[in-house]
Amino acid sequence: MIIVADNLRITNRGIEQAMKDTDPKPVRQLAERCALAGAEAIDINTGPLNKAPEKKMEFMVGAVQEVLDLPILIDTANPRAIEAGLRVSRRKAIINGFSLEPEKLKSILPLANKYEADIIGYLLYPDGNVPPNGAERLNVAVDLFAECRGAGVDEAHLIIDPIIVPLMWQNGNIQDMEILSVIRTLPDLLGYNVRTIAGLSNLTAGRKNKDEKALLERAYLPMLLEAGLSMALIDVFHEETIRIARACRTLISPRVFSFEEIPDHKDNGT
Amino acid sequence: MIIVADNLRITNRGIEQAMKDTDPKPVRQLAERCALAGAEAIDINTGPLNKAPEKKMEFMVGAVQEVLDLPILIDTANPRAIEAGLRVSRRKAIINGFSLEPEKLKSILPLANKYEADIIGYLLYPDGNVPPNGAERLNVAVDLFAECRGAGVDEAHLIIDPIIVPLMWQNGNIQDMEILSVIRTLPDLLGYNVRTIAGLSNLTAGRKNKDEKALLERAYLPMLLEAGLSMALIDVFHEETIRIARACRTLISPRVFSFEEIPDHKDNGT
Repeated sequence: MIIVADNLRITNRGIEQAMKDTDPKPVRQLAERCALAGAEAIDINTGPLNKAPEKKMEFMVGAVQEVLDLPILIDTANPRAIEAGLRVSRRKAIINGFSLEPEKLKSILPLANKYEADIIGYLLYPDGNVPPNGAERLNVAVDLFAECRGAGVDEAHLIIDPIIVPLMWQNGNIQDMEILSVIRTLPDLLGYNVRTIAGLSNLTAGRKNKDEKALLERAYLPMLLEAGLSMALIDVFHEETIRIARACRTLISPRVFSFEEIPDHKDNGT
Repeated sequence: MIIVADNLRITNRGIEQAMKDTDPKPVRQLAERCALAGAEAIDINTGPLNKAPEKKMEFMVGAVQEVLDLPILIDTANPRAIEAGLRVSRRKAIINGFSLEPEKLKSILPLANKYEADIIGYLLYPDGNVPPNGAERLNVAVDLFAECRGAGVDEAHLIIDPIIVPLMWQNGNIQDMEILSVIRTLPDLLGYNVRTIAGLSNLTAGRKNKDEKALLERAYLPMLLEAGLSMALIDVFHEETIRIARACRTLISPRVFSFEEIPDHKDNGT
Protein backbone atom coordinates (compact mmCIF):
# COMPACT_ATOMS: atom_id res chain seq x y z
CA MET A 1 0.00 0.00 0.00
CA ILE A 2 1.25 3.42 -1.00
CA ILE A 3 0.58 6.46 1.18
CA VAL A 4 -0.56 9.35 -1.03
CA ALA A 5 -0.67 12.82 0.55
CA ASP A 6 -3.97 14.64 -0.01
CA ASN A 7 -2.60 17.82 1.52
CA LEU A 8 -1.61 19.75 -1.60
CA ARG A 9 -5.01 21.14 -2.50
CA ILE A 10 -6.45 24.43 -3.63
CA THR A 11 -8.78 24.47 -0.64
CA ASN A 12 -5.63 25.18 1.39
CA ARG A 13 -5.50 29.00 1.47
CA GLY A 14 -1.73 29.17 1.29
CA ILE A 15 -1.71 26.99 -1.81
CA GLU A 16 -4.52 28.95 -3.41
CA GLN A 17 -2.56 32.17 -2.90
CA ALA A 18 0.69 30.61 -4.16
CA MET A 19 -1.09 29.54 -7.35
CA LYS A 20 -2.44 33.06 -7.81
CA ASP A 21 0.98 34.60 -7.27
CA THR A 22 2.87 31.85 -9.12
CA ASP A 23 5.03 31.67 -6.00
CA PRO A 24 6.59 28.18 -5.76
CA LYS A 25 7.87 28.58 -2.20
CA PRO A 26 4.71 27.62 -0.26
CA VAL A 27 4.12 24.70 -2.63
CA ARG A 28 7.67 23.44 -2.21
CA GLN A 29 7.47 23.79 1.54
CA LEU A 30 4.20 21.90 1.81
CA ALA A 31 5.46 19.17 -0.53
CA GLU A 32 8.60 18.76 1.55
CA ARG A 33 6.59 18.60 4.76
CA CYS A 34 4.41 15.89 3.20
CA ALA A 35 7.43 13.80 2.29
CA LEU A 36 8.88 14.19 5.77
CA ALA A 37 5.53 13.15 7.24
CA GLY A 38 5.54 9.93 5.25
CA ALA A 39 4.04 10.67 1.82
CA GLU A 40 5.14 8.22 -0.86
CA ALA A 41 3.21 9.99 -3.62
CA ILE A 42 1.55 13.41 -3.84
CA ASP A 43 -1.89 14.31 -5.11
CA ILE A 44 -2.00 17.77 -6.69
CA ASN A 45 -5.60 18.89 -6.35
CA THR A 46 -6.00 22.16 -8.19
CA GLY A 47 -9.76 22.25 -8.65
CA PRO A 48 -11.19 22.92 -12.12
CA LEU A 49 -8.71 25.70 -13.11
CA ASN A 50 -10.96 27.81 -15.25
CA LYS A 51 -8.23 30.32 -16.08
CA ALA A 52 -4.87 29.37 -17.58
CA PRO A 53 -5.14 25.69 -16.65
CA GLU A 54 -1.94 24.66 -18.45
CA LYS A 55 0.20 27.34 -16.90
CA LYS A 56 -1.14 26.71 -13.43
CA MET A 57 -0.73 22.95 -13.53
CA GLU A 58 2.77 23.27 -14.98
CA PHE A 59 3.60 25.62 -12.15
CA MET A 60 2.29 23.20 -9.52
CA VAL A 61 3.97 20.11 -10.92
CA GLY A 62 7.17 22.08 -11.44
CA ALA A 63 7.21 23.40 -7.89
CA VAL A 64 6.70 19.93 -6.42
CA GLN A 65 9.33 18.37 -8.67
CA GLU A 66 11.90 20.94 -7.65
CA VAL A 67 12.00 19.43 -4.18
CA LEU A 68 10.63 15.89 -4.48
CA ASP A 69 11.07 12.85 -6.64
CA LEU A 70 7.79 11.17 -5.69
CA PRO A 71 5.00 10.02 -8.02
CA ILE A 72 2.44 12.72 -8.68
CA LEU A 73 -1.33 12.39 -9.06
CA ILE A 74 -2.88 15.09 -11.21
CA ASP A 75 -6.20 15.72 -9.52
CA THR A 76 -8.47 17.92 -11.62
CA ALA A 77 -11.44 17.54 -13.94
CA ASN A 78 -9.82 19.89 -16.45
CA PRO A 79 -8.37 17.87 -19.34
CA ARG A 80 -6.13 20.72 -20.48
CA ALA A 81 -4.59 20.94 -17.04
CA ILE A 82 -4.17 17.16 -16.93
CA GLU A 83 -2.36 17.11 -20.23
CA ALA A 84 -0.08 19.95 -19.19
CA GLY A 85 0.73 18.08 -15.99
CA LEU A 86 1.45 14.86 -17.86
CA ARG A 87 3.76 16.73 -20.26
CA VAL A 88 5.91 18.35 -17.60
CA SER A 89 6.07 15.62 -14.99
CA ARG A 90 9.45 13.92 -14.80
CA ARG A 91 8.10 10.59 -13.61
CA LYS A 92 4.96 9.41 -15.31
CA ALA A 93 2.12 11.11 -13.48
CA ILE A 94 -1.17 9.44 -12.57
CA ILE A 95 -4.38 10.95 -13.92
CA ASN A 96 -6.93 11.52 -11.13
CA GLY A 97 -9.27 10.76 -12.77
CA PHE A 98 -12.16 9.82 -14.97
CA SER A 99 -15.61 8.25 -14.63
CA LEU A 100 -18.50 7.17 -16.86
CA GLU A 101 -19.52 10.81 -17.22
CA PRO A 102 -19.55 11.31 -21.02
CA GLU A 103 -17.38 14.44 -20.94
CA LYS A 104 -14.69 12.63 -18.98
CA LEU A 105 -14.79 9.56 -21.18
CA LYS A 106 -14.32 11.82 -24.18
CA SER A 107 -11.68 14.22 -22.94
CA ILE A 108 -9.80 12.59 -20.05
CA LEU A 109 -9.67 8.85 -20.71
CA PRO A 110 -7.86 9.26 -24.08
CA LEU A 111 -5.01 11.04 -22.27
CA ALA A 112 -4.16 7.78 -20.50
CA ASN A 113 -3.70 6.20 -23.90
CA LYS A 114 -1.76 9.11 -25.42
CA TYR A 115 0.68 9.36 -22.49
CA GLU A 116 0.57 5.69 -21.47
CA ALA A 117 -0.26 6.95 -18.00
CA ASP A 118 -2.01 5.32 -15.06
CA ILE A 119 -5.53 6.64 -14.65
CA ILE A 120 -7.93 6.51 -11.73
CA GLY A 121 -11.51 5.51 -12.54
CA TYR A 122 -14.21 6.55 -10.07
CA LEU A 123 -17.07 4.18 -9.38
CA LEU A 124 -19.74 6.76 -10.24
CA TYR A 125 -22.76 6.64 -12.51
CA PRO A 126 -22.67 8.42 -15.88
CA ASP A 127 -24.58 11.30 -14.25
CA GLY A 128 -21.88 11.66 -11.62
CA ASN A 129 -23.95 10.21 -8.79
CA VAL A 130 -22.63 7.68 -6.30
CA PRO A 131 -24.00 4.13 -6.73
CA PRO A 132 -26.09 3.16 -3.70
CA ASN A 133 -24.43 -0.15 -2.87
CA GLY A 134 -21.60 -2.55 -3.51
CA ALA A 135 -23.26 -4.52 -6.31
CA GLU A 136 -23.87 -1.33 -8.27
CA ARG A 137 -20.28 -0.25 -7.72
CA LEU A 138 -19.12 -3.53 -9.22
CA ASN A 139 -21.36 -2.99 -12.26
CA VAL A 140 -19.81 0.43 -12.76
CA ALA A 141 -16.33 -1.10 -12.44
CA VAL A 142 -17.11 -3.49 -15.26
CA ASP A 143 -18.28 -0.56 -17.40
CA LEU A 144 -15.17 1.48 -16.59
CA PHE A 145 -13.01 -1.48 -17.53
CA ALA A 146 -14.87 -1.83 -20.85
CA GLU A 147 -14.42 1.88 -21.56
CA CYS A 148 -10.68 1.56 -20.95
CA ARG A 149 -10.49 -1.34 -23.39
CA GLY A 150 -12.51 0.62 -25.92
CA ALA A 151 -10.21 3.61 -25.62
CA GLY A 152 -7.13 1.47 -26.09
CA VAL A 153 -5.96 1.96 -22.51
CA ASP A 154 -4.07 -1.04 -21.18
CA GLU A 155 -5.96 -2.55 -18.23
CA ALA A 156 -2.77 -2.37 -16.19
CA HIS A 157 -3.12 1.43 -16.22
CA LEU A 158 -6.52 1.43 -14.57
CA ILE A 159 -6.70 2.19 -10.84
CA ILE A 160 -10.17 2.04 -9.33
CA ASP A 161 -11.51 4.43 -6.70
CA PRO A 162 -14.64 2.92 -5.10
CA ILE A 163 -15.65 6.34 -3.66
CA ILE A 164 -15.86 6.28 0.10
CA VAL A 165 -19.03 8.08 1.18
CA PRO A 166 -19.58 10.23 4.27
CA LEU A 167 -20.68 8.34 7.37
CA MET A 168 -23.18 11.16 7.75
CA TRP A 169 -25.15 9.87 4.79
CA GLN A 170 -28.23 7.92 5.73
CA ASN A 171 -26.65 4.56 4.91
CA GLY A 172 -23.07 5.85 4.78
CA ASN A 173 -21.48 3.29 7.06
CA ILE A 174 -23.20 0.41 5.28
CA GLN A 175 -21.85 1.62 1.94
CA ASP A 176 -18.39 2.07 3.39
CA MET A 177 -18.46 -1.48 4.71
CA GLU A 178 -19.61 -2.76 1.30
CA ILE A 179 -16.69 -0.92 -0.27
CA LEU A 180 -14.41 -3.37 1.53
CA SER A 181 -16.10 -6.24 -0.30
CA VAL A 182 -15.85 -4.28 -3.55
CA ILE A 183 -12.08 -3.94 -3.08
CA ARG A 184 -11.79 -7.65 -2.31
CA THR A 185 -13.96 -8.66 -5.27
CA LEU A 186 -12.54 -6.44 -8.04
CA PRO A 187 -9.50 -8.56 -8.96
CA ASP A 188 -11.67 -11.67 -9.43
CA LEU A 189 -14.39 -9.74 -11.22
CA LEU A 190 -12.07 -8.05 -13.70
CA GLY A 191 -9.73 -11.01 -13.98
CA TYR A 192 -6.47 -9.29 -13.08
CA ASN A 193 -4.81 -7.72 -10.11
CA VAL A 194 -6.41 -4.31 -10.55
CA ARG A 195 -5.13 -1.59 -8.24
CA THR A 196 -7.41 0.46 -6.02
CA ILE A 197 -7.24 3.86 -4.36
CA ALA A 198 -9.49 5.61 -1.85
CA GLY A 199 -9.69 9.07 -0.35
CA LEU A 200 -9.99 8.60 3.39
CA SER A 201 -11.16 12.13 4.19
CA ASN A 202 -14.48 11.48 2.43
CA LEU A 203 -15.41 9.23 5.34
CA THR A 204 -15.87 12.06 7.78
CA ALA A 205 -16.93 14.84 5.42
CA GLY A 206 -19.47 17.04 7.20
CA ARG A 207 -18.31 16.15 10.70
CA LYS A 208 -16.87 19.05 12.66
CA ASN A 209 -14.87 17.50 15.46
CA LYS A 210 -11.33 17.01 14.13
CA ASP A 211 -10.34 14.56 16.81
CA GLU A 212 -13.35 12.39 16.07
CA LYS A 213 -12.76 12.60 12.31
CA ALA A 214 -9.18 11.43 12.67
CA LEU A 215 -10.26 8.62 15.01
CA LEU A 216 -12.83 7.28 12.55
CA GLU A 217 -10.25 7.43 9.76
CA ARG A 218 -7.79 5.47 11.87
CA ALA A 219 -10.44 2.83 12.52
CA TYR A 220 -11.41 2.49 8.85
CA LEU A 221 -7.92 2.55 7.33
CA PRO A 222 -6.86 -0.91 8.62
CA MET A 223 -10.06 -2.38 7.19
CA LEU A 224 -9.32 -0.84 3.79
CA LEU A 225 -5.74 -2.04 3.83
CA GLU A 226 -6.68 -5.54 4.88
CA ALA A 227 -9.22 -5.63 2.06
CA GLY A 228 -6.31 -5.01 -0.30
CA LEU A 229 -6.38 -1.26 -1.03
CA SER A 230 -3.31 -0.35 -3.13
CA MET A 231 -3.10 3.39 -2.49
CA ALA A 232 -4.53 5.44 0.37
CA LEU A 233 -5.10 9.14 -0.13
CA ILE A 234 -4.71 10.62 3.34
CA ASP A 235 -3.83 13.71 5.32
CA VAL A 236 -0.22 12.81 6.07
CA PHE A 237 -0.07 15.38 8.86
CA HIS A 238 -2.26 13.08 10.92
CA GLU A 239 0.72 11.46 12.56
CA GLU A 240 -1.19 8.68 14.28
CA THR A 241 -2.89 7.73 11.00
CA ILE A 242 0.51 7.33 9.37
CA ARG A 243 1.70 5.23 12.29
CA ILE A 244 -1.37 3.01 11.95
CA ALA A 245 -0.81 2.69 8.19
CA ARG A 246 2.75 1.51 8.79
CA ALA A 247 1.67 -0.89 11.51
CA CYS A 248 -0.86 -2.33 9.04
CA ARG A 249 1.99 -2.95 6.64
CA THR A 250 3.79 -4.98 9.28
CA LEU A 251 0.62 -7.03 9.72
CA ILE A 252 -0.29 -7.45 6.07
CA SER A 253 3.11 -7.83 4.41
CA PRO A 254 3.42 -11.40 3.10
CA ARG A 255 7.01 -11.59 4.27
CA VAL A 256 7.92 -9.97 7.52
CA PHE A 257 11.05 -10.96 9.35
CA SER A 258 10.20 -11.84 12.87
CA PHE A 259 12.26 -9.10 14.42
CA GLU A 260 11.57 -6.37 11.95
CA GLU A 261 10.80 -3.07 13.61
CA ILE A 262 8.03 -0.77 12.48
CA PRO A 263 9.88 1.86 10.46
CA ASP A 264 10.16 5.41 11.80
CA HIS A 265 7.85 4.94 14.69
CA LYS A 266 8.37 7.18 17.66
CA ASP A 267 9.39 5.51 20.85
CA ASN A 268 7.99 7.72 23.55
CA GLY A 269 8.60 5.08 26.17
CA THR A 270 5.00 4.86 27.32
CA MET B 1 -18.69 -6.65 19.54
CA ILE B 2 -18.20 -6.87 23.28
CA ILE B 3 -15.10 -5.44 24.96
CA VAL B 4 -13.75 -7.96 27.47
CA ALA B 5 -11.10 -6.75 29.91
CA ASP B 6 -8.05 -9.01 30.10
CA ASN B 7 -6.61 -7.02 33.00
CA LEU B 8 -7.71 -9.16 35.93
CA ARG B 9 -4.97 -11.78 35.81
CA ILE B 10 -2.70 -13.55 38.20
CA THR B 11 0.35 -12.24 36.36
CA ASN B 12 -0.59 -8.87 37.85
CA ARG B 13 1.40 -8.81 41.13
CA GLY B 14 -1.28 -6.94 43.05
CA ILE B 15 -3.88 -9.52 42.08
CA GLU B 16 -1.56 -12.42 42.87
CA GLN B 17 -1.01 -10.98 46.34
CA ALA B 18 -4.73 -10.30 46.84
CA MET B 19 -5.47 -13.93 46.03
CA LYS B 20 -2.84 -15.10 48.48
CA ASP B 21 -4.22 -12.84 51.22
CA THR B 22 -7.88 -13.34 50.28
CA ASP B 23 -8.09 -9.56 50.26
CA PRO B 24 -10.95 -8.48 47.98
CA LYS B 25 -10.01 -4.80 47.91
CA PRO B 26 -7.38 -4.82 45.12
CA VAL B 27 -9.62 -7.10 43.03
CA ARG B 28 -12.62 -4.84 43.49
CA GLN B 29 -10.59 -1.76 42.68
CA LEU B 30 -9.14 -3.24 39.49
CA ALA B 31 -12.57 -4.50 38.39
CA GLU B 32 -14.06 -1.06 38.92
CA ARG B 33 -11.27 0.60 36.98
CA CYS B 34 -11.88 -1.85 34.10
CA ALA B 35 -15.56 -0.98 33.98
CA LEU B 36 -14.79 2.74 34.04
CA ALA B 37 -12.29 2.22 31.22
CA GLY B 38 -14.92 0.59 29.03
CA ALA B 39 -15.01 -3.12 29.91
CA GLU B 40 -18.34 -4.77 29.08
CA ALA B 41 -17.27 -8.16 30.44
CA ILE B 42 -14.38 -9.30 32.64
CA ASP B 43 -12.03 -12.23 32.17
CA ILE B 44 -10.83 -13.67 35.46
CA ASN B 45 -7.51 -15.31 34.67
CA THR B 46 -6.31 -17.15 37.74
CA GLY B 47 -3.80 -19.54 36.24
CA PRO B 48 -4.02 -23.26 37.09
CA LEU B 49 -4.73 -22.80 40.82
CA ASN B 50 -3.00 -25.87 42.17
CA LYS B 51 -3.98 -25.15 45.76
CA ALA B 52 -7.57 -24.63 46.93
CA PRO B 53 -8.92 -23.93 43.46
CA GLU B 54 -12.56 -23.72 44.52
CA LYS B 55 -11.93 -21.32 47.35
CA LYS B 56 -9.75 -19.08 45.25
CA MET B 57 -12.10 -18.88 42.29
CA GLU B 58 -15.05 -18.26 44.58
CA PHE B 59 -13.10 -15.46 46.18
CA MET B 60 -12.27 -13.88 42.80
CA VAL B 61 -15.74 -14.12 41.34
CA GLY B 62 -17.21 -12.90 44.61
CA ALA B 63 -14.91 -9.89 44.78
CA VAL B 64 -15.74 -8.86 41.22
CA GLN B 65 -19.47 -9.33 41.73
CA GLU B 66 -19.43 -7.16 44.81
CA VAL B 67 -18.77 -4.14 42.63
CA LEU B 68 -19.81 -5.05 39.09
CA ASP B 69 -22.74 -6.60 37.30
CA LEU B 70 -20.85 -7.50 34.12
CA PRO B 71 -20.54 -10.93 32.50
CA ILE B 72 -17.59 -12.92 33.80
CA LEU B 73 -15.25 -15.23 31.89
CA ILE B 74 -13.69 -17.93 34.04
CA ASP B 75 -10.23 -18.29 32.59
CA THR B 76 -8.39 -21.30 33.96
CA ALA B 77 -7.55 -24.84 32.91
CA ASN B 78 -8.60 -26.15 36.34
CA PRO B 79 -12.03 -27.79 36.09
CA ARG B 80 -12.61 -27.61 39.84
CA ALA B 81 -12.01 -23.88 39.78
CA ILE B 82 -14.28 -23.49 36.76
CA GLU B 83 -17.11 -25.34 38.44
CA ALA B 84 -16.73 -23.29 41.60
CA GLY B 85 -16.85 -20.10 39.52
CA LEU B 86 -19.94 -21.27 37.66
CA ARG B 87 -21.65 -22.09 40.94
CA VAL B 88 -21.12 -18.74 42.58
CA SER B 89 -21.51 -16.38 39.65
CA ARG B 90 -24.74 -14.41 39.72
CA ARG B 91 -25.02 -14.04 35.96
CA LYS B 92 -24.19 -17.14 33.97
CA ALA B 93 -20.39 -17.14 33.60
CA ILE B 94 -18.55 -18.08 30.42
CA ILE B 95 -16.07 -20.97 30.59
CA ASN B 96 -12.69 -19.96 29.13
CA GLY B 97 -12.19 -22.57 27.87
CA PHE B 98 -11.62 -25.97 26.35
CA SER B 99 -9.85 -27.49 23.34
CA LEU B 100 -9.40 -30.89 21.71
CA GLU B 101 -6.88 -31.79 24.42
CA PRO B 102 -8.34 -35.04 25.87
CA GLU B 103 -8.16 -33.86 29.48
CA LYS B 104 -10.15 -30.74 28.65
CA LEU B 105 -12.72 -32.63 26.62
CA LYS B 106 -13.23 -34.94 29.55
CA SER B 107 -13.25 -32.53 32.45
CA ILE B 108 -14.15 -29.06 31.14
CA LEU B 109 -16.56 -29.50 28.24
CA PRO B 110 -19.17 -31.38 30.33
CA LEU B 111 -19.42 -28.38 32.66
CA ALA B 112 -20.93 -26.37 29.80
CA ASN B 113 -23.67 -28.97 29.63
CA LYS B 114 -24.18 -29.29 33.37
CA TYR B 115 -24.42 -25.51 33.91
CA GLU B 116 -25.86 -24.63 30.48
CA ALA B 117 -23.01 -22.15 30.22
CA ASP B 118 -21.29 -20.57 27.23
CA ILE B 119 -17.89 -22.12 26.60
CA ILE B 120 -14.93 -20.91 24.62
CA GLY B 121 -13.29 -23.48 22.34
CA TYR B 122 -9.68 -22.86 21.31
CA LEU B 123 -8.60 -23.76 17.80
CA LEU B 124 -5.72 -25.94 18.99
CA TYR B 125 -4.66 -29.46 18.12
CA PRO B 126 -5.32 -32.30 20.59
CA ASP B 127 -1.67 -31.98 21.68
CA GLY B 128 -2.20 -28.30 22.51
CA ASN B 129 -0.20 -27.01 19.56
CA VAL B 130 -1.36 -24.17 17.36
CA PRO B 131 -2.47 -25.19 13.85
CA PRO B 132 -0.13 -23.72 11.22
CA ASN B 133 -2.71 -22.08 8.96
CA GLY B 134 -6.31 -21.08 8.41
CA ALA B 135 -7.44 -24.31 6.77
CA GLU B 136 -6.20 -26.35 9.73
CA ARG B 137 -7.93 -23.98 12.13
CA LEU B 138 -11.20 -24.58 10.30
CA ASN B 139 -10.69 -28.35 10.56
CA VAL B 140 -10.20 -28.01 14.29
CA ALA B 141 -13.34 -25.86 14.51
CA VAL B 142 -15.35 -28.66 12.91
CA ASP B 143 -13.93 -31.12 15.43
CA LEU B 144 -14.69 -28.80 18.36
CA PHE B 145 -18.23 -28.41 17.10
CA ALA B 146 -18.63 -32.21 16.88
CA GLU B 147 -17.27 -32.63 20.41
CA CYS B 148 -19.83 -30.12 21.69
CA ARG B 149 -22.61 -32.04 20.01
CA GLY B 150 -21.29 -35.30 21.41
CA ALA B 151 -21.19 -33.84 24.93
CA GLY B 152 -24.76 -32.58 24.66
CA VAL B 153 -23.68 -28.93 24.62
CA ASP B 154 -26.04 -26.75 22.59
CA GLU B 155 -24.16 -25.23 19.65
CA ALA B 156 -25.39 -21.79 20.70
CA HIS B 157 -23.11 -22.08 23.76
CA LEU B 158 -19.92 -22.49 21.74
CA ILE B 159 -17.70 -19.43 21.29
CA ILE B 160 -14.62 -20.01 19.15
CA ASP B 161 -11.19 -18.52 19.84
CA PRO B 162 -9.05 -18.80 16.69
CA ILE B 163 -5.83 -18.19 18.72
CA ILE B 164 -4.00 -15.11 17.54
CA VAL B 165 -0.30 -15.92 17.30
CA PRO B 166 2.66 -13.62 18.04
CA LEU B 167 3.84 -11.56 15.08
CA MET B 168 7.30 -12.61 16.22
CA TRP B 169 6.66 -16.15 15.04
CA GLN B 170 8.24 -16.94 11.71
CA ASN B 171 4.96 -16.75 9.81
CA GLY B 172 3.03 -14.99 12.58
CA ASN B 173 1.57 -12.17 10.53
CA ILE B 174 0.44 -14.55 7.80
CA GLN B 175 -1.39 -16.69 10.34
CA ASP B 176 -2.96 -13.62 11.92
CA MET B 177 -4.21 -12.47 8.53
CA GLU B 178 -5.60 -15.96 7.85
CA ILE B 179 -7.44 -15.77 11.17
CA LEU B 180 -9.54 -12.99 9.66
CA SER B 181 -10.73 -15.39 6.97
CA VAL B 182 -11.33 -18.04 9.62
CA ILE B 183 -13.61 -15.65 11.52
CA ARG B 184 -15.44 -14.78 8.30
CA THR B 185 -15.80 -18.42 7.26
CA LEU B 186 -16.88 -20.05 10.53
CA PRO B 187 -20.61 -19.18 10.39
CA ASP B 188 -20.92 -20.66 6.90
CA LEU B 189 -18.78 -23.66 7.77
CA LEU B 190 -20.66 -24.56 10.94
CA GLY B 191 -24.05 -23.51 9.60
CA TYR B 192 -25.03 -21.02 12.30
CA ASN B 193 -24.02 -17.65 13.57
CA VAL B 194 -21.25 -18.93 15.83
CA ARG B 195 -19.65 -16.33 18.08
CA THR B 196 -15.90 -15.71 18.18
CA ILE B 197 -13.45 -14.26 20.69
CA ALA B 198 -9.78 -13.36 20.42
CA GLY B 199 -7.09 -12.26 22.85
CA LEU B 200 -5.44 -9.24 21.30
CA SER B 201 -2.36 -9.24 23.51
CA ASN B 202 -1.15 -12.50 21.92
CA LEU B 203 -0.36 -10.48 18.81
CA THR B 204 2.60 -8.71 20.32
CA ALA B 205 3.77 -11.32 22.82
CA GLY B 206 7.54 -11.17 23.02
CA ARG B 207 7.84 -7.58 21.86
CA LYS B 208 9.25 -5.20 24.42
CA ASN B 209 8.28 -1.74 23.27
CA LYS B 210 4.92 -1.00 24.87
CA ASP B 211 4.12 1.85 22.51
CA GLU B 212 4.76 -0.35 19.50
CA LYS B 213 2.73 -3.23 20.98
CA ALA B 214 -0.28 -0.99 21.52
CA LEU B 215 0.07 0.45 18.02
CA LEU B 216 0.04 -2.98 16.37
CA GLU B 217 -2.97 -3.97 18.45
CA ARG B 218 -4.82 -0.84 17.34
CA ALA B 219 -4.04 -1.66 13.71
CA TYR B 220 -5.18 -5.28 13.99
CA LEU B 221 -8.35 -4.71 16.05
CA PRO B 222 -10.37 -3.00 13.26
CA MET B 223 -9.52 -5.89 10.93
CA LEU B 224 -10.78 -8.41 13.51
CA LEU B 225 -13.95 -6.44 14.13
CA GLU B 226 -14.67 -5.98 10.45
CA ALA B 227 -14.19 -9.73 9.99
CA GLY B 228 -17.00 -10.19 12.50
CA LEU B 229 -15.31 -10.91 15.83
CA SER B 230 -17.95 -11.06 18.58
CA MET B 231 -15.79 -10.46 21.66
CA ALA B 232 -12.38 -8.84 21.96
CA LEU B 233 -10.24 -9.63 24.97
CA ILE B 234 -8.13 -6.51 25.46
CA ASP B 235 -6.21 -4.41 27.93
CA VAL B 236 -8.92 -1.85 28.60
CA PHE B 237 -6.39 0.55 30.07
CA HIS B 238 -5.12 1.17 26.55
CA GLU B 239 -7.36 4.17 26.11
CA GLU B 240 -6.69 4.67 22.42
CA THR B 241 -7.48 1.00 21.74
CA ILE B 242 -10.87 1.42 23.40
CA ARG B 243 -11.51 4.58 21.36
CA ILE B 244 -10.66 2.67 18.16
CA ALA B 245 -12.94 -0.20 19.19
CA ARG B 246 -15.81 2.23 19.66
CA ALA B 247 -15.10 3.99 16.37
CA CYS B 248 -15.20 0.58 14.68
CA ARG B 249 -18.66 0.07 16.12
CA THR B 250 -19.81 3.30 14.50
CA LEU B 251 -18.44 2.01 11.19
CA ILE B 252 -19.69 -1.55 11.43
CA SER B 253 -23.08 -1.14 13.11
CA PRO B 254 -25.80 -2.01 10.60
CA ARG B 255 -27.92 0.90 11.75
CA VAL B 256 -26.17 4.10 12.65
CA PHE B 257 -28.07 7.35 12.77
CA SER B 258 -26.33 9.89 10.65
CA PHE B 259 -25.61 12.27 13.48
CA GLU B 260 -24.81 9.75 16.15
CA GLU B 261 -21.79 10.69 18.17
CA ILE B 262 -19.11 8.20 19.12
CA PRO B 263 -19.96 7.38 22.72
CA ASP B 264 -17.67 8.59 25.49
CA HIS B 265 -14.90 9.80 23.24
CA LYS B 266 -12.78 12.56 24.61
CA ASP B 267 -12.95 15.86 22.82
CA ASN B 268 -9.55 17.34 23.33
CA GLY B 269 -10.23 20.01 20.75
CA THR B 270 -7.37 19.10 18.43
